[in-house]
Amino acid sequence: MASAKTLQFGPLAIPLAQTFMMSKHSFGLVNLKPIRPGHVLVVARRQVARFNELSPEEVSDLFVHGQQVSKAVEKLFNADALTMCIQDGTAAGQTVKHVHLHIIPRIAGDFANNDEIYSVLEGTGTVPQQTHIDNEQREPRSAHEMAAEAVMLRREIGGWEEALSQFM
Amino acid sequence: MASAKTLQFGPLAIPLAQTFMMSKHSFGLVNLKPIRPGHVLVVARRQVARFNELSPEEVSDLFVHGQQVSKAVEKLFNADALTMCIQDGTAAGQTVKHVHLHIIPRIAGDFANNDEIYSVLEGTGTVPQQTHIDNEQREPRSAHEMAAEAVMLRREIGGWEEALSQFM
Repeated sequence: MASAKTLQFGPLAIPLAQTFMMSKHSFGLVNLKPIRPGHVLVVARRQVARFNELSPEEVSDLFVHGQQVSKAVEKLFNADALTMCIQDGTAAGQTVKHVHLHIIPRIAGDFANNDEIYSVLEGTGTVPQQTHIDNEQREPRSAHEMAAEAVMLRREIGGWEEALSQFM
Repeated sequence: MASAKTLQFGPLAIPLAQTFMMSKHSFGLVNLKPIRPGHVLVVARRQVARFNELSPEEVSDLFVHGQQVSKAVEKLFNADALTMCIQDGTAAGQTVKHVHLHIIPRIAGDFANNDEIYSVLEGTGTVPQQTHIDNEQREPRSAHEMAAEAVMLRREIGGWEEALSQFM
């Protein structure tokens, strides 16, 4: 029987099946509409909108685990580089009012203009042909596809069962 | 007599006068060519190119102090929000091969397209008229102007002299 446990991300109740990293203060979440393959989020477990509301312990936890996640996505998605970004507040393009770090694998030439990625991130640009995302129009992915990606990431990062028993 | 001490940022020897936060593993640096008023950098003191080369202690230090810096720039530059970003590797737009966090104060409507900021960051876009940067063409600022901004930031953050004696 599937776990009924969920984690809050803004107004959304996220099923555990879509998560792949769990710590005291943070969790890793696959993306409903990735702008690049392997575009994932690291979310602060305490729901606050702004980065300055996190405690130093929460800040450390977010980025130390963010680094683990970044290594895993770079390897699994054969990337050369990563864009790591927090849109901290509405005027910075934040849509979900809950602190989260975007980690986006990058490959040379993935976007015609290197930083077109950000307008795509904010929904004001279109995903270019060469990105090879399964669905070019950023249609939501299926629950099955997201869960499969989460399983792959859990395997790469390791320690999932232990982390669940400790932090859930 | 001015201190001859410098800090390394990629190939550049940065005079202490252009810095405003100092910790065991990180320092705050004003920008030669800010894309918005208050656009500053938090730099890892150990010179490595990629985020995954930092130790967990270095990661924590960078972001805990990055949070302090972010509070100061948001207040001093009357911002509503912040863009916080690491371009981690060449394919992500990194130009200086030394881990650094961009902290950029944002105000609603500062860029016509909200994420035009990133193409400006990478030198592929132009700074829009409404940004009110002293120099619209992103000419390098004077040493005097940068030092004055560093002094203002040191005052807001506090503890500068103690940090210097402890960490320099």
